[in-house]
Amino acid sequence: MEPAIRAQMAMMLEVTAYPKPGNVDRCHDYPSTHLEHFLASAILAGPTLHRAQEGGVAIGELFREAIAATNVHSGGNTHFGAFILLIPLVVGRDIGGAARLVRATTVQDAVDFYESFDLTSVRMHKTDPLDVHNPRATEIIRERGLSLFDIMVHSAPTDMVAREWTDSFRLTRKGADLLKQHGSGRKAIVATFLEMLASEPDTFVIKKHGREVALEVMSLAQEAKAGKITLEMLDQRLVSKGINPGSLADILIASIYVALGEGWEWDS
Amino acid sequence: MEPAIRAQMAMMLEVTAYPKPGNVDRCHDYPSTHLEHFLASAILAGPTLHRAQEGGVAIGELFREAIAATNVHSGGNTHFGAFILLIPLVVGRDIGGAARLVRATTVQDAVDFYESFDLTSVRMHKTDPLDVHNPRATEIIRERGLSLFDIMVHSAPTDMVAREWTDSFRLTRKGADLLKQHGSGRKAIVATFLEMLASEPDTFVIKKHGREVALEVMSLAQEAKAGKITLEMLDQRLVSKGINPGSLADILIASIYVALGEGWEWDS
Repeated sequence: MEPAIRAQMAMMLEVTAYPKPGNVDRCHDYPSTHLEHFLASAILAGPTLHRAQEGGVAIGELFREAIAATNVHSGGNTHFGAFILLIPLVVGRDIGGAARLVRATTVQDAVDFYESFDLTSVRMHKTDPLDVHNPRATEIIRERGLSLFDIMVHSAPTDMVAREWTDSFRLTRKGADLLKQHGSGRKAIVATFLEMLASEPDTFVIKKHGREVALEVMSLAQEAKAGKITLEMLDQRLVSKGINPGSLADILIASIYVALGEGWEWDS
Repeated sequence: MEPAIRAQMAMMLEVTAYPKPGNVDRCHDYPSTHLEHFLASAILAGPTLHRAQEGGVAIGELFREAIAATNVHSGGNTHFGAFILLIPLVVGRDIGGAARLVRATTVQDAVDFYESFDLTSVRMHKTDPLDVHNPRATEIIRERGLSLFDIMVHSAPTDMVAREWTDSFRLTRKGADLLKQHGSGRKAIVATFLEMLASEPDTFVIKKHGREVALEVMSLAQEAKAGKITLEMLDQRLVSKGINPGSLADILIASIYVALGEGWEWDS
């Protein structure tokens, strides 16, 4: 399966897998973001992902193009974090290639990345001079000569997706290994998501609800893993509190992409 | 939205809409064909649909390529009939263009079309010399100088998808008009499907179960339309008898493609 198609398949397989506690899945929509929005983004990103596969286009430009192509529906930024991981993975083919590429990103990549934020409502720290909604942010980036990798270094302590760039895609790798350990298809995706949820605090949840809530999600996931509560109960608890572990979902997409490239079977 | 993406969106929107009595939808799988298989085909067909959009490739070759690209999973031929309609629609852009194109198909298109059957288990009439599993069929096609359009003329009396070619995409047009009448998004798709089901006997159902069963499906759909039974009850009745109105689903995909090109809103 060619890398671009593999990335689209990963986006599709992640969102259709169920039950995936707290997130949109085959059986759950959010009030304003539906299954169709996620699947539309997977389709709409196709041409950009094929451009990424062909090579010769900068990461920042590809990122901006992916956001522009998918930001056309009312469902919001379904795959912002996923593209941060998928685009270097598609250009670089695998984790090794992606880890080298992200370290070679430029100031222009950072500027393109920031410009794509104008289309979105992604949240970062409001007091940060590099906040994506600070109109002076790109000016500061140029003044300080920050590459997109530098931006991710800056974000890594509070953002687990950015941390994948600085940490050689550690959780992406872990997720891919878990997928293979858990067999094939839908069930392996759900089992991997639960295991990640039980072992990693989701930084998107921390930003929205605070660290305590994120740790509470982890211990609930541990209870579900131990069979003390059902996945459905875990899902209800998260949904009722408006908690969606979106960064883990982004990383899971990258893990599925990697696993598919290593022979993991989605079709079961 | 460019034609290739529009075709993929149509495939995605059709299969995720629910409740769609008798067919795979967001909430129902068949035992061996799952939602993921349909969505995988929508993604896997992307490169071929983009080739179709660029132009200069024959309909038969595109068709064979689409089948080869999507026939890689265990879910079977999820979109065989849909491709018969979508490929001329994407190359020709709209119904007018497609209707002209199909009449200009060649003997080579017919041969390519037949060769794609070798990958599949699509059913036709076993006593027909042009049966797709007759090893002499392509020989007969060449001897008689039959174009792909001639093949569809031959199949039209018993196959409503083939009839779209000979009938200027009459039901595709009707479905697109119904989608617009029924508003936007998921609800309009379900309402259109029900209205088509209530007014057109599905030839796939006729081939599999006989004409009487197909007429029974129509009258059940009329009862659902009149509110005498719920959509869920209709769905249960069809699923319990193994009845899936697959040809109407193929035509609905073509209708969504056309409606999207005419400004119909999928996002609601």
